[in-house]
Amino acid sequence: MKIGIFGYGNLARGVENAIYKNSDMELAAVFTRRDASAVKTSTPGVKVLPASEVLSMKNDIDVLVICGGSATDLPEMTPRLAEDFNVIDSYDNHSRIPEHYAAVNAKAVAGRHTALISCGWDPGMFSINRLYANAVLPDGKDYTFWGRGVSQGHSDAIRRIEGVVDARQYTVPVPEAVESVRRGENPELTTRQKHTRECYVVAAEGADKEKIRNAIVTMPAYFADYDTTVNFITMEEMKRDHSGLPHGGSVIRTGRTGKDGEHKQVIEYKLTLDSNPEFTGSVLVAYARAVKRLSDRGIYGCKTVFDIAPADLMLADRSEIIAHML
Amino acid sequence: MKIGIFGYGNLARGVENAIYKNSDMELAAVFTRRDASAVKTSTPGVKVLPASEVLSMKNDIDVLVICGGSATDLPEMTPRLAEDFNVIDSYDNHSRIPEHYAAVNAKAVAGRHTALISCGWDPGMFSINRLYANAVLPDGKDYTFWGRGVSQGHSDAIRRIEGVVDARQYTVPVPEAVESVRRGENPELTTRQKHTRECYVVAAEGADKEKIRNAIVTMPAYFADYDTTVNFITMEEMKRDHSGLPHGGSVIRTGRTGKDGEHKQVIEYKLTLDSNPEFTGSVLVAYARAVKRLSDRGIYGCKTVFDIAPADLMLADRSEIIAHML
Repeated sequence: MKIGIFGYGNLARGVENAIYKNSDMELAAVFTRRDASAVKTSTPGVKVLPASEVLSMKNDIDVLVICGGSATDLPEMTPRLAEDFNVIDSYDNHSRIPEHYAAVNAKAVAGRHTALISCGWDPGMFSINRLYANAVLPDGKDYTFWGRGVSQGHSDAIRRIEGVVDARQYTVPVPEAVESVRRGENPELTTRQKHTRECYVVAAEGADKEKIRNAIVTMPAYFADYDTTVNFITMEEMKRDHSGLPHGGSVIRTGRTGKDGEHKQVIEYKLTLDSNPEFTGSVLVAYARAVKRLSDRGIYGCKTVFDIAPADLMLADRSEIIAHML
Repeated sequence: MKIGIFGYGNLARGVENAIYKNSDMELAAVFTRRDASAVKTSTPGVKVLPASEVLSMKNDIDVLVICGGSATDLPEMTPRLAEDFNVIDSYDNHSRIPEHYAAVNAKAVAGRHTALISCGWDPGMFSINRLYANAVLPDGKDYTFWGRGVSQGHSDAIRRIEGVVDARQYTVPVPEAVESVRRGENPELTTRQKHTRECYVVAAEGADKEKIRNAIVTMPAYFADYDTTVNFITMEEMKRDHSGLPHGGSVIRTGRTGKDGEHKQVIEYKLTLDSNPEFTGSVLVAYARAVKRLSDRGIYGCKTVFDIAPADLMLADRSEIIAHML
């Protein structure tokens, strides 16, 4: 199957690398809003075209993976492209998913295409695991811990502070909180009790570090509700120690079964990722396969990871999966 | 929806308790091969009928949960009952699943019913997690660890030894092996390096304990390939300390992403269960809901957990799930 990539940043490179690992897939084209001639892909000979020419490939792409940001790119791009392509995106603004869903669904239905939104690990694999755990243990409590990992949004927020040259922010789950949840103690946890925030900052020469530190730890929504540590480092240290994009976390549901709820049951799904964009890209590519299959069956409109039967993610055929993986 | 339970042992009681937790379900009848009048269910007023009268409830049961053993019960029961009922079972003889599948599918298709086999946690939730992890990380390695938990098959094997009054066997994962896998070291592990076996045995008065110990640790298939410890205890200790049926384990896949496989990615799904039969029963009940929905849509034949989209497990409707769980 032929995959197109729309937008070419970190996530797109993760998608590109994931395509190599799947023998039924090839990268048909990359579309960019930057100067196409300046984009270097890692796939030899692949077409790089301006985003404005995407329709020229309408009949040569089975699924278009849209690699834009959730703030402004995807709400515009995914509905528009869903009219002419089968599409998949990683829209992650949880509170506005129903709105995005409705916009994409209308266009996908009109164009007789299949779309899948909000795919990746959260939303994505974490969402599926929340759902499975809730279905199996209706009497229970959900917990999600993120990290230890780099939050790009929080890193960007620090970079916008005057006097900051570069910054990296790690979200870190509080070990005691995670262990209490794993023991099935059902703690009530405040925001502060669940995660801490670790910041590494390169300050401009002569910048007021105390002022920067204060601007970070008091920043509403991003840092004010957390115990935040700020470490000033050199640009050399930043490049040497903080160039990766690790992430991960755990979705845990603790439930009760038995006539009087006498038995504790704990389900945990845990990710430990060296590269967040490469893992997200890998999930997108697996679901792109399912999007193609639904489209081939004439199942159009907007779907989510909740609508996809696990077997549709696998290249291997169903009898092989039943024989070897069940 | 109306659930029937066929067979009434530990697993059936787990199913019965799970039905209480799901407001869209009720227990319509229990069928037993024992004397029906001697079976005490925990649901007040529920019909208990002889297994031979199951067809009398053909029109009053939406899904029949078949709670028999995998060795001889299910291979006979599930195909036979699939002709007249929507059915679900927990068939767990991994190597013979394709054979069971074919037998059940033929009868379900003939009778225009929906069947789902091999549901629970392994096979079941563990299988799904193996599949998801393989789909997302095609370049990787799978590990499954079981325990710490009671293996009924191994406990039974010990009970068959002369001079043994009662026995309980715990399967225990080797912590160093689990930690090495979690760190993404991809160790090659022998059977002995993955699990140990802990046995608690009540010996008959005057029995030769050394002989019993030797019979256990040298028993082929069950114990010979493991480091096995045997502890002789009193019947009082057995009842006090070993009356539960805890279990659990982890499915872990470690994979590589990136152009040169430079990034490690680790996915773990972990269960910590106070009660194995109650958890298995909870999984069966969630999938019974999906079986009913497939049947209502006219999708007949034999299915597995791989064929069920996650949304079909939930009572809540799709728009609510998208808004709150994605």
